[in-house]
Amino acid sequence: MKETVLILGADGYIGWNLMMYLGRKNQGLVVGIDNYSRRKLVNKVKGDSLIPIASMKTRIEAYKEVFKKNNLRFFAFDITNSHLLRKAIKKIRPTIIINLAQMPSAPYSMKNLGYAAWTIKNNVIGNLNLLWIMREICPKAHLIKMGTMGEYGTPNVDIPKGFFELKYKGRKDWVPFPRQAGSFYHWAKVTESQHTNFACKIWGLRATDMMQGVVYGVTTEESQKDSRLAGRFDYDGVFGTAINRFVVQSMCGIPMTPFGKGGQIRGFLNIKDSLKCFELYINNPPKEGEYRVFNQLVEQHRTVTQLADMVKQIGKKKGYNSSIKKIKNPRIENEKHYYNAETTKLTKLGLIASDFRKEIEKMFDDLKPYIHRVNKESIIPKITWK
Amino acid sequence: MKETVLILGADGYIGWNLMMYLGRKNQGLVVGIDNYSRRKLVNKVKGDSLIPIASMKTRIEAYKEVFKKNNLRFFAFDITNSHLLRKAIKKIRPTIIINLAQMPSAPYSMKNLGYAAWTIKNNVIGNLNLLWIMREICPKAHLIKMGTMGEYGTPNVDIPKGFFELKYKGRKDWVPFPRQAGSFYHWAKVTESQHTNFACKIWGLRATDMMQGVVYGVTTEESQKDSRLAGRFDYDGVFGTAINRFVVQSMCGIPMTPFGKGGQIRGFLNIKDSLKCFELYINNPPKEGEYRVFNQLVEQHRTVTQLADMVKQIGKKKGYNSSIKKIKNPRIENEKHYYNAETTKLTKLGLIASDFRKEIEKMFDDLKPYIHRVNKESIIPKITWK
Repeated sequence: MKETVLILGADGYIGWNLMMYLGRKNQGLVVGIDNYSRRKLVNKVKGDSLIPIASMKTRIEAYKEVFKKNNLRFFAFDITNSHLLRKAIKKIRPTIIINLAQMPSAPYSMKNLGYAAWTIKNNVIGNLNLLWIMREICPKAHLIKMGTMGEYGTPNVDIPKGFFELKYKGRKDWVPFPRQAGSFYHWAKVTESQHTNFACKIWGLRATDMMQGVVYGVTTEESQKDSRLAGRFDYDGVFGTAINRFVVQSMCGIPMTPFGKGGQIRGFLNIKDSLKCFELYINNPPKEGEYRVFNQLVEQHRTVTQLADMVKQIGKKKGYNSSIKKIKNPRIENEKHYYNAETTKLTKLGLIASDFRKEIEKMFDDLKPYIHRVNKESIIPKITWK
Repeated sequence: MKETVLILGADGYIGWNLMMYLGRKNQGLVVGIDNYSRRKLVNKVKGDSLIPIASMKTRIEAYKEVFKKNNLRFFAFDITNSHLLRKAIKKIRPTIIINLAQMPSAPYSMKNLGYAAWTIKNNVIGNLNLLWIMREICPKAHLIKMGTMGEYGTPNVDIPKGFFELKYKGRKDWVPFPRQAGSFYHWAKVTESQHTNFACKIWGLRATDMMQGVVYGVTTEESQKDSRLAGRFDYDGVFGTAINRFVVQSMCGIPMTPFGKGGQIRGFLNIKDSLKCFELYINNPPKEGEYRVFNQLVEQHRTVTQLADMVKQIGKKKGYNSSIKKIKNPRIENEKHYYNAETTKLTKLGLIASDFRKEIEKMFDDLKPYIHRVNKESIIPKITWK
């Protein structure tokens, strides 16, 4: 791979790991941009990465030392400032742009009006700036944008790959699948997807939109080489997500907490599989003017309660005695529903997924040195949808 | 009707006429809010209302004088300021809230990144503020929100009333109809509709969402009573819309300008019919927690070229010698397509539409005293989508 890669949101859970992963694969530069908002917001809700993380400067120096490559760069600024973003893109001239620069928490966006409005402005305007600036400066670059499976909600039918043949009253058309998001954060993602599709249509940009499932996992091949290379790991009630939180709860002897009936089903994938997907998209780019959607997940057959149970069994093997306690659902969502997302496109590109059980086992080992750092107070979700 | 009505966007084309219309029908107060952005933006693109319009203060005084009623109020501020909006709603305690406070021009939103971003922030955040504040202060009020038929785009199937039975791979669900907007302005409307639907679902608000066609017409029963009561009338290339522009072009001896092949079909309705719809929604409110959608149009069987031809014939009768000249399409859109929107819900509520031809004839008479004021320079659209 020889590309000039630009990653927006390079300091996040996926962002930093992707910097290293693509840095190693790529002959060209991998440039990151971030405003450090993730670090600030997690601290604001009294959370903290369970694994201590270094500054981007230290990380990049450690990468150079460990991998003997000097192809990572980083700039700290906010991409909702279109002037700074334009200047950076003019200078970098990326061939690949990956937009991960989004506030990623559903509860955060539901806390109050101020947080909801900030989420929409931050996520939607950042992506809008990028689209207009790509049109102006690098219309042929390949945009890879982070969407979410949460855009679709939980319809009572299979979830196609973004588009489907609509049949209505004897006529038909090929149209976007209806979106039914469950938080203002998820709705912001819907808006970004719609804007991106529209920009491809009118300006001939090309984009890969990843409807990603919930990512779990602690380390990647790169991050485990040196403690200065560690990626962040959130487990709090605002920025933590299902499996990651369950493993932490299990290790701390706190009951795992499915919401409500616990029959919710979501798509999941390991962080290493997420990184592989980016590589596959880069090596198999869309055509000019093409907007394509991948449902990016590999595991979707267990309910949240069944997942908790699986983590419980694995914990037991590892010597932890954990329990499950359903709590009142802070969200408004279907607690028992049909779920089946089509993922054949990923398989066709060549994704071979990690072993689900083994990866969860590995999480227990990865987190062991840090589990004493847990702040138990921050685990229970306090933000409600009502 | 005895309601406390709040109209956001009370200074616009529909806003001011609606203030008077509901003011006359209603026993309670009709309170308007506006930041005068429409006046400012139209002037910014070198346009101006063809009919001189008075200040809101003068208008309200004239209304009092003409209709012997003292039930209109007006406050000038920007609803994207949530503190001001909250304060106003706390004081007014509306039972009906009508949100027309949107920048309404597709070309304006496509001019450049700054205009696009401003449109989204203004329209989406204004509506978001309203939803959160309604939840807090008046969750039982009936929200009537201005959407647009443009949210649906021009699918190759009938357009249902917002929702439809989705059949996919042997299963089915009742879901929102896919949206395929054609400008960032239209996408902002989609986002507002999605947020509003979501707010009804999670907070139990109730809303009527109007997917309105293109409104045409000059005067209403109220506005023609006194020159101080006149509503605005835009004909420029940015804020003017199809029929209104055609009539002005016809009267000025400038060719009418369908875009491209001119086979586009849109829904239309007269401004007086639009006002009636609001009254019907108020008198037939949705249930608590209900989000309902009306396709608000009465005329959708002629292509844009056929409409221009109709205006030409009417113009001829009125003594104007007009012509039609197709111009290069500044937009990216289907120029020949299927179009059939379902509108039965409006008929069931009791809407009896005005006579299309007679209303266009009347426009020639209404505009005659002002046609010398036309700035011909401003008529041709200059903003392109590419």
